Amino acid sequence: MQNSPTYSKFELTREYVDDLQLAIAENNTEYARELVAELHEADIAEIYDELNIEQARFVHLLLDEELAANVISELEDDVRIRFLKELPEDIIANYIIKNIESDDAADIIGDLSKEKRAKILASIKDIEQAGDIIDLLNYDEDTAGGLMAKELIAINKDITVRACLVELRNQAKKVKNIYYIYVVDEDNKLVGTLSLKRLLLANTSQKIFDICNTDIITAHTEDDDEIVANLMHKYNLVSLPVVDSIGRLLGKITIDDIVDVIKEEAEKDYQMMSGITEDVESSDSIFKLTRARLPWLFIGLIGELLGSQVIGAYEGDIVKYAGLALFMPLIAAMGGNSGVQSSSIIVQGLASGNLGIESVWKKIGKEFIIALINGLALATIAFIFTYLVHSSMVLTISITISLLSVIVFASLFGTIVPLVLNKIKIDPAVATGPFITTSNDVLGFLIYFSVARMVFTMI
Amino acid sequence: MQNSPTYSKFELTREYVDDLQLAIAENNTEYARELVAELHEADIAEIYDELNIEQARFVHLLLDEELAANVISELEDDVRIRFLKELPEDIIANYIIKNIESDDAADIIGDLSKEKRAKILASIKDIEQAGDIIDLLNYDEDTAGGLMAKELIAINKDITVRACLVELRNQAKKVKNIYYIYVVDEDNKLVGTLSLKRLLLANTSQKIFDICNTDIITAHTEDDDEIVANLMHKYNLVSLPVVDSIGRLLGKITIDDIVDVIKEEAEKDYQMMSGITEDVESSDSIFKLTRARLPWLFIGLIGELLGSQVIGAYEGDIVKYAGLALFMPLIAAMGGNSGVQSSSIIVQGLASGNLGIESVWKKIGKEFIIALINGLALATIAFIFTYLVHSSMVLTISITISLLSVIVFASLFGTIVPLVLNKIKIDPAVATGPFITTSNDVLGFLIYFSVARMVFTMI
Repeated sequence: MQNSPTYSKFELTREYVDDLQLAIAENNTEYARELVAELHEADIAEIYDELNIEQARFVHLLLDEELAANVISELEDDVRIRFLKELPEDIIANYIIKNIESDDAADIIGDLSKEKRAKILASIKDIEQAGDIIDLLNYDEDTAGGLMAKELIAINKDITVRACLVELRNQAKKVKNIYYIYVVDEDNKLVGTLSLKRLLLANTSQKIFDICNTDIITAHTEDDDEIVANLMHKYNLVSLPVVDSIGRLLGKITIDDIVDVIKEEAEKDYQMMSGITEDVESSDSIFKLTRARLPWLFIGLIGELLGSQVIGAYEGDIVKYAGLALFMPLIAAMGGNSGVQSSSIIVQGLASGNLGIESVWKKIGKEFIIALINGLALATIAFIFTYLVHSSMVLTISITISLLSVIVFASLFGTIVPLVLNKIKIDPAVATGPFITTSNDVLGFLIYFSVARMVFTMI
Repeated sequence: MQNSPTYSKFELTREYVDDLQLAIAENNTEYARELVAELHEADIAEIYDELNIEQARFVHLLLDEELAANVISELEDDVRIRFLKELPEDIIANYIIKNIESDDAADIIGDLSKEKRAKILASIKDIEQAGDIIDLLNYDEDTAGGLMAKELIAINKDITVRACLVELRNQAKKVKNIYYIYVVDEDNKLVGTLSLKRLLLANTSQKIFDICNTDIITAHTEDDDEIVANLMHKYNLVSLPVVDSIGRLLGKITIDDIVDVIKEEAEKDYQMMSGITEDVESSDSIFKLTRARLPWLFIGLIGELLGSQVIGAYEGDIVKYAGLALFMPLIAAMGGNSGVQSSSIIVQGLASGNLGIESVWKKIGKEFIIALINGLALATIAFIFTYLVHSSMVLTISITISLLSVIVFASLFGTIVPLVLNKIKIDPAVATGPFITTSNDVLGFLIYFSVARMVFTMI
């Protein structure tokens, strides 16, 4: 506790990092300590990102035990794994794991090798804590079980507010943030929640069950993390109790973990649409960035090379009517744009669980009408432009009909593919990625040239 | 308060809505009331989405006053505006605004016409509440001031825990959720925060200032909402105090509002990349969906029609070497994919404030190397394929060199454009939208045909 307020909004700069690295190089512990003093664990974790392992370790030894442990849990996964690799298991157990909550502990240990994991668990002195972590490691990390922490305040429904306050003092040490008290019966089944506000305002002789909120929203351990996120978002919750199949209280999920889930899910979908295969930032290494970008480019290339073969089948038509070639990019782009629009609306709807109550057929019917309206509007413009510029009615009619057909086809394809992917348990966001957009391209050309050939032979 | 726990995870179905609509049509208030009984305000708001205004009003009259008010604040903006349009101002003031917190009240009133707004404000009986709302309406809704609520618990730093508990009971009525107490000095300057947990564990004779946390993170009223969101996410905060330029406490922002901001920002960027101009869901009307989709398609069409003119300048080359046409889509797609990859990494970095501490030149240099690696790898495959399939060295060399050039060009263009847009205060996400991707397309063809002409004349 300091005595004057500090408004700590730390900004990481090149100068700061240079300064710190110099202090480390000169072994100037005093100055280095001064540089990191009073920083938040999240800021220190950000600094480690810019240091090599030896430098990070130097800084780490300057921190007090609890802060040091919290910094570890704030690190990005890859940085943390590298950092912990060379730390002895008993140090990890008794200096890091000891000082953090069970959900973070399970996340940290879960990323390590099986062997290292076992050694750390064996080194934890608090058997209850080790047991909690082992329990949590059993859950898939993308489920409510994988997100929850074991630390919470559970109070028997039949005690009074006075007794609850005493019990709260006993239990409070193990829980970092307390927003709600969970009210349980003798079988540990969750029967209500109680906000600290309500507790503070209650009469000390009242019974807990009489003042608690019994209209509770819960998650089950196996619930998908996206469902949990939608639930907490929809109902504006800061913490959500997790129960087993018969309603026994197992843990709680806090909103900060859910904010991470929401951001990660949004980034995943965004990356999928931009053809990036892993979670990268512009500050990552060239190797990591290339690894994330090359795969989808490669698939796109193969698709388009096959596409060139499809177009090759119409090479004769192109030689005869070179004007056709000029509009190939237009057809591809408009098909691509319409398809991505449709897919992305479905993908977002599936992700946030608000596709609405329309049936699939109604959706497809609606999409057909929208595509028809858009297609007719755009085809009209294309018609006028093409006729004015090229004054060839055959070319103009070919372009117009194919443009309309491709827009309708791509819109329906874009609507149906993510729905089907979702049905067969593949991430529907794949539909917005290069694989589908390339197929869309190739199919678009098939439509284009077939229509053109038909028009040219008919007129 | 009920006496048995209900685990209310409501799912909106077609059957439910049909049932409710039938009850309304038959004027069966009892059954309709039963259907919405015990639902959460967020669920009822979702139901309104499926009803027409008269039906929604029928349901609304069945709800108790506080729930009815909360439903209004949960409605989507457009539904709410329609709903409130026909409600008398004094009803809005004394039944809705009266029962909700100042930030929600300001959001609701802010969306209405100036005239209606003035009438509602004049009808609010609690002068303090009216004043709070008027204050909040002065802030831009995308800033910390626009997000904050005036309702909070402020306690003088010099009182004891015992006095604080008394004061808390006095102030608690006006605040819905209390997670932190804000500790202020005699000038209302924020000097610390105190969690309810800490307060409950403290000795009643301790002075508040001695137990509060003085290492506080704050927002200023004019801070951008994205910055506030990044701050709360980074430091895992559930509420954030907002101060004026000299540190006086003005309000607090809670995490549920920030989750909304995070989701909206992510959706905005996603929609931009998919070429959609407004926030739509697949369940929206055909009119709304078309309105959101047609503008970018239109811009794309115009761009590609101009592109066809650019290609037209090379029509002679296409007639001579029809093989060139086959690879136009490949060039366009690979340029587009590389460009979107680069842009999206920059856009995400700018949005979450983690572009890192590299200089712009270092970023561009890095992007050049990545583009070169990707380009060389892909060009090699294209070289082998083209030579094997078309056995024309001139065509093969043209394709290979242009592919490499287009990938490098598009990657750099994709990196630089969002950085420049951000610099001149335009949303950098525009760089991932159709306007830029179409320019990229057209410039890509210019490169392609220039390179091809050069190669064909040289070899």
